[in-house]
Amino acid sequence: MNQIAAADQEVIGTLNKGLGALEKPGTAEEIAQLGWNLLNEDLSLPAAVLYRDRLQHNLNWMQRFIDAYGVKLAPHGKTTMAPRLFKMQLDGGAWGITLATPHQAAVAHAHGVHRVLMANQLVGRQNMRLIANLLEDRDFVFYCLVDSAENVDQLGAFFHERGLRLKVLLELGVMGGRCGVRDDGQMQRVLQALNRWKSAVDLCGVELYEGVLKDEENIRAFLRRACEVTNWLIAEDLIERKPALISGAGSAWYDVVAEEFHSAGFGSKVEIVLRPGCYLTHDVGNYEMQQKRILKSNSVARQMRSGLIPALHIWTYVQSVPEPELAVVEMGRRDAAFDSGLPAPTLHFRPGDEIPRATPTHWEVTKLMDQHGYLKIAPGDNVRVGDLVGFNISHPCLTFDKWRVIPIVDEKYNVVDLVKTYF
Amino acid sequence: MNQIAAADQEVIGTLNKGLGALEKPGTAEEIAQLGWNLLNEDLSLPAAVLYRDRLQHNLNWMQRFIDAYGVKLAPHGKTTMAPRLFKMQLDGGAWGITLATPHQAAVAHAHGVHRVLMANQLVGRQNMRLIANLLEDRDFVFYCLVDSAENVDQLGAFFHERGLRLKVLLELGVMGGRCGVRDDGQMQRVLQALNRWKSAVDLCGVELYEGVLKDEENIRAFLRRACEVTNWLIAEDLIERKPALISGAGSAWYDVVAEEFHSAGFGSKVEIVLRPGCYLTHDVGNYEMQQKRILKSNSVARQMRSGLIPALHIWTYVQSVPEPELAVVEMGRRDAAFDSGLPAPTLHFRPGDEIPRATPTHWEVTKLMDQHGYLKIAPGDNVRVGDLVGFNISHPCLTFDKWRVIPIVDEKYNVVDLVKTYF
Repeated sequence: MNQIAAADQEVIGTLNKGLGALEKPGTAEEIAQLGWNLLNEDLSLPAAVLYRDRLQHNLNWMQRFIDAYGVKLAPHGKTTMAPRLFKMQLDGGAWGITLATPHQAAVAHAHGVHRVLMANQLVGRQNMRLIANLLEDRDFVFYCLVDSAENVDQLGAFFHERGLRLKVLLELGVMGGRCGVRDDGQMQRVLQALNRWKSAVDLCGVELYEGVLKDEENIRAFLRRACEVTNWLIAEDLIERKPALISGAGSAWYDVVAEEFHSAGFGSKVEIVLRPGCYLTHDVGNYEMQQKRILKSNSVARQMRSGLIPALHIWTYVQSVPEPELAVVEMGRRDAAFDSGLPAPTLHFRPGDEIPRATPTHWEVTKLMDQHGYLKIAPGDNVRVGDLVGFNISHPCLTFDKWRVIPIVDEKYNVVDLVKTYF
Repeated sequence: MNQIAAADQEVIGTLNKGLGALEKPGTAEEIAQLGWNLLNEDLSLPAAVLYRDRLQHNLNWMQRFIDAYGVKLAPHGKTTMAPRLFKMQLDGGAWGITLATPHQAAVAHAHGVHRVLMANQLVGRQNMRLIANLLEDRDFVFYCLVDSAENVDQLGAFFHERGLRLKVLLELGVMGGRCGVRDDGQMQRVLQALNRWKSAVDLCGVELYEGVLKDEENIRAFLRRACEVTNWLIAEDLIERKPALISGAGSAWYDVVAEEFHSAGFGSKVEIVLRPGCYLTHDVGNYEMQQKRILKSNSVARQMRSGLIPALHIWTYVQSVPEPELAVVEMGRRDAAFDSGLPAPTLHFRPGDEIPRATPTHWEVTKLMDQHGYLKIAPGDNVRVGDLVGFNISHPCLTFDKWRVIPIVDEKYNVVDLVKTYF
């Protein structure tokens, strides 16, 4: 099915940060045989570390949630851009992988992903060419978004000339939002353009990204508009694909999207595809807040009796304790997201100890520079240069993209696998 | 001298963002032969683009500035992490390359850099091992910083056991700053530890990073303290290296550091090393502001009759114009720094035009999401889906680290070279 053979043969070079010293390049399988252990200081910190058990838990959790609604999951792959994680998601039951750019789609295709929803417009000659090259592979299914007649005309001309057909979804948007048609007038112009390019462009359904709205009531109204538009397009026989596709859901409001699309009662006429991406590693910032809301308000999530758990840490060293209330750690804006909350210390380990202990609750990251972090401590805290500290993160997307290779560890901190990223 | 043969043979893979479609991996030289041109839409945008002439101008400017003060330049390589740019800097007269982490030092060494100043503490078993492995190459000269007895003891024990000698600089710091000894008591404890580890650790001089201070008067006082400490250490014969090293200067206050260290009148007893990194590409944010100050207040810079110029752009497409005052562009937090000012539109090009024109001054990026940018326009502006827009950036360091390969173009936007980065 989703064989990602290429990924297994990928070579990891000797010059990636956050690994141990490598005498020569090797595959993930070969490197996992080296017996590296985080607590044994076999990694050159700072390192990003994924926890195998927690990844698996989150993977199962989301698939169960999705299955309970009878919808499809196309996890947003832009979060991790790690084909080995795409494979885990596909093997776990995902319908396809969502991506944001032609480059990302090309990475997925090169690693054996057969179905990509590019939740974005396809613009520009070389970008269209990248996608056209992928479409020469007849086993590869690809959808992208359209929201303007101009773009449809450009796509029509390009793909007609290449003798290829492109599948598109109509993107709906809201005033003050990002992309997407705002009103019926814009939608009609897109539909007219699609009518001009029947030779090359197939309308397959409707898409929206509700995450541009902050308020549940507006989000539900936006989702209902999408359901109405979908029903109308089907009634007018303007959608080539049977069943039609409808897709929404970022990582924050997937529960509300599942509820609304499910209760629209489409039956077999419509296939519903949700696209959360951050669930795989979760975080302790915005997504933890959203998860609390979901566990409280969503009946399916409530019945599951567990939630998503943070599966990604940044581990690093204390490098200096120059003031009674300041420890400087080797972790900066090059290592962790800082755009929606700073990393949060969670584990403290001194080489020679048995296991990490929880960090005191008063420890806090107050600032990140490019390569350094300021950790606020209290006078007299037992902290030394050379101690290891593990940090939870906020915003997985902007943490993953700072790492080219990320070790996966077991519950004893042994490195049992590694994933390469392609940002 | 600084032959970076390895870099010239480095292969660029087919799955990097911001390049054209590649049928197979190739070297920079091979890819530069493909005849790619930015305005011909041969690159898959968004792409980061370096301008050859402007890089060369900035390189020459800084070397002339440095030479005028009779000091040495060790550009901070963490900014670009591009060994081909390190080579340009070394060929242009740089004394060595400054770096921030053992991983970065290993990257530089692997590409033929022979002298590295790691302006940071060396902490942790695997990090020490990485550096010890480099020191087995007797042609490689390496300095790092110490600011605690604990760290000196750890380094001493490790390098003594490996039978290697480690060169260190004493880091000075200020209250409320980052690393570095705050007072004489801390300094004395470090010196006592150095005395314990004469078998393995050589004190070679003094270092500070003045950029943690925001105010010129405090910076000058900090620099004078460093000069006094250096003179005292020399007088006490505590510095192994003859001449002693003194090093300071980030990318904002290098002029003030040059003035203060120069006017200390060290003569042949001390070698002065400055470490700016962002000058190579410059920006239109904080470093432009600092440059204005320097051109106004520094006599050497005034005589040079020119300043640094921005040499790095992000180019991308307009993908949607859904509202009269909003164009959405394909450029997000994954593509450009956003921590000290958002990218600033500068050039607008419509495929088929001769050359780009300046963007209207009222265009402005108001928000970046992970993969999208919001460009504020005015109703009726001549902007279309498929147009190219070039953006200046603020903060080169956090822009470079979002790109694995960056094309260098000539004045006609032909791709004439490419640099790989190693973040």
